[in-house]
Amino acid sequence: MSRLVMKFGGTSVADLERIRRVGRLVAAEVEAGKKVAVVVSAMAGKTNELVAWTDGAGAAAQGLDPSDDEYDTVVASGEQVTAGLLAMTLRNMGLRARSWMGWQIPIVTDDAHGRARIEDIPPEKLGAALDGGEVAVIAGFQGVTPGGRITTLGRGGSDTTAVAIAAAVKAECCDIYTDVDGVYTTDPRIEAKARRLAKISYEEMLEMASLGAKVLHTRSVEMAMAHNVPVRVLSSFVEPGEAPGQGTIVCDEEEIVEKRIVSGVAYSRDEAKISLFGLPDHPGVSSEIFGRLADANVNVDMIVQSHARTEGAANMEFTVGKRDAARAVDIVRAAQKEIGFQDVAVDEDVAKVSVIGVGMRSHTGVAKTMFKALADKGVNIQVISTSEIKISVLIDAAYTELAVRALHAAYGLDAL
Amino acid sequence: MSRLVMKFGGTSVADLERIRRVGRLVAAEVEAGKKVAVVVSAMAGKTNELVAWTDGAGAAAQGLDPSDDEYDTVVASGEQVTAGLLAMTLRNMGLRARSWMGWQIPIVTDDAHGRARIEDIPPEKLGAALDGGEVAVIAGFQGVTPGGRITTLGRGGSDTTAVAIAAAVKAECCDIYTDVDGVYTTDPRIEAKARRLAKISYEEMLEMASLGAKVLHTRSVEMAMAHNVPVRVLSSFVEPGEAPGQGTIVCDEEEIVEKRIVSGVAYSRDEAKISLFGLPDHPGVSSEIFGRLADANVNVDMIVQSHARTEGAANMEFTVGKRDAARAVDIVRAAQKEIGFQDVAVDEDVAKVSVIGVGMRSHTGVAKTMFKALADKGVNIQVISTSEIKISVLIDAAYTELAVRALHAAYGLDAL
Repeated sequence: MSRLVMKFGGTSVADLERIRRVGRLVAAEVEAGKKVAVVVSAMAGKTNELVAWTDGAGAAAQGLDPSDDEYDTVVASGEQVTAGLLAMTLRNMGLRARSWMGWQIPIVTDDAHGRARIEDIPPEKLGAALDGGEVAVIAGFQGVTPGGRITTLGRGGSDTTAVAIAAAVKAECCDIYTDVDGVYTTDPRIEAKARRLAKISYEEMLEMASLGAKVLHTRSVEMAMAHNVPVRVLSSFVEPGEAPGQGTIVCDEEEIVEKRIVSGVAYSRDEAKISLFGLPDHPGVSSEIFGRLADANVNVDMIVQSHARTEGAANMEFTVGKRDAARAVDIVRAAQKEIGFQDVAVDEDVAKVSVIGVGMRSHTGVAKTMFKALADKGVNIQVISTSEIKISVLIDAAYTELAVRALHAAYGLDAL
Repeated sequence: MSRLVMKFGGTSVADLERIRRVGRLVAAEVEAGKKVAVVVSAMAGKTNELVAWTDGAGAAAQGLDPSDDEYDTVVASGEQVTAGLLAMTLRNMGLRARSWMGWQIPIVTDDAHGRARIEDIPPEKLGAALDGGEVAVIAGFQGVTPGGRITTLGRGGSDTTAVAIAAAVKAECCDIYTDVDGVYTTDPRIEAKARRLAKISYEEMLEMASLGAKVLHTRSVEMAMAHNVPVRVLSSFVEPGEAPGQGTIVCDEEEIVEKRIVSGVAYSRDEAKISLFGLPDHPGVSSEIFGRLADANVNVDMIVQSHARTEGAANMEFTVGKRDAARAVDIVRAAQKEIGFQDVAVDEDVAKVSVIGVGMRSHTGVAKTMFKALADKGVNIQVISTSEIKISVLIDAAYTELAVRALHAAYGLDAL
């Protein structure tokens, strides 16, 4: 019998009725002969309540690191509750089940509280429970240090727990249940012709995740890729008796027979463009600027440098996350003399639109198709950046939907 | 430096403002040179919320034992939250502190989930933390089995945790902070002349606790007596800067120099009297009745048997808790033929009033004083029961306050 990991997020376990629905999905897999480990998040809203209390206890207010060991002790209690409730629910459905906290397995992490990294998951105890026919209900998001303190894994932590457990017990698949039924060629709210992908490669999913498609967190995809764990994205919002559908399988590129040139079109409105004018045109200017931003933990994404008409002067444009924009401007302004620019401007009215596909590696003309499709619709490109399997452009935010639809059609995704 | 255990219940940590107040009380003891371990309950209302969820998850509804291992996993999360929040609060006040869950110390219990008994608390880790100048904030009410499952200790569990910790680390005292400022000679809501006792013996406190004075739970007093841990009852509801007062010290009888004959007057309205009429007057009748009630876990308190005027027939009166009354009547009715009584009646309109004092052991005439005081006020005594340090009478509930006040005066407690 093969082992399966199922993961349910906060909205899927938001109340007792939904927990019972999760119980039925688990029971169906057990009946199908699977040995099941289930990873659960805290009930929707509970983590926020706990975090607010820790803020009130003064961590944030007093300038202490809110992500300390006590923060983790408080916040990890949310997943403990869900795990116990789901185990009870499964027992009441006639299944054998028990809950597992991070410290009971144990899920050993480093001691970077609030954003801990999983270091080891000894598979013996969990494997024995699964082989004994018991459903293992695992509290997601949490681990334990070698010294015995509770840790939490930070954003997307429960996805990471699920993939790590799947790797540890050598599960055939890690099913991530969420509020969508798979990964789409683009956001269906923008393009009704968006199609669910049957399969997508880890690398494509990584680009999708980091570009704003919020289905899976980047860290969990990285871990799945590192351990070659197939991940399936499925919807937990199915009616009783209804199957959750096929979802989308995230897997190694080699296992995708029909490779598409472009698998999806992603977008992000969470960008701000900062422009520096009249920079001195000599070596070291870039390191003056981006060194300071890196020191302040401001993440810079796209960068383009252009020569101004004035002899010996250049302009520089780069993008940062919207929430970092004001801080980034302050940082460069404070160093205006050292950097030597004449003026700075910030534009938050921009969006980044990207096409992603492993097929780009072996095909030419992908960029040309993109630029032509955008030009045909009169969309002006402000900045361009590329990776091996991705081309991103920064455009006026007002054109976001138009650009997404045009690219979806241009790469033949409408007819997929 | 001496070690001190402080314990705060749910109402004392009901919100962040109250947790900060607790923090100030802890800080005052640290400043006074004490090595402090603090035991906390869940925030008021939280345990009920968690228990309601476990009921909803089907444990109660499906006839399963609600006190199973998953119930404990869910419910124990409440104390985890408070312990983390208080540790954060203390750190923000400039103290060194950390939280300890039952499994981290560990507080080893048996596996009677929902009502576990503490079996062992290795003092090494906790003692080292205290000696290192760190306040230990301990989640009350919870423990861990040798197999690593979370347990809870049942009613009064956090008091029991506090006393057990005090015994384990050989604390000079276990301070139980509550919503009253000590143990009184009687309920001040009934008798305004009630006085706070400076000291009371374990045995007297046990009788007080089991007779309805809700200050300390019986189990914690039993444990304090077994390990000879002095327990102090104090109020946590003091204003900033104000000292919590002296409270009442519960200690060994030997340490009480001036022994009173009667230390307190207690009462309970939680009684029901069941009367069986026309019983056959032969051996074995009592065991017929009380054997059946014991088998059904009905706790019988006072018992009196009297001969009826009819030759060879007797009447029997006994008391049970009000919530067991209907069940007790059903049980005896179902066995009417075997027991052989003619009629049964139940009276819920009764109260038990008791006088308690270790001085009774060496003084005579205590009962006489009681009966005369009640007779003088026209209070009819229905049933009497006594122990070495206690005399209880069952009376018409309407006379409860009158009887309490009369006895308080009769034993000189008004003028204490």
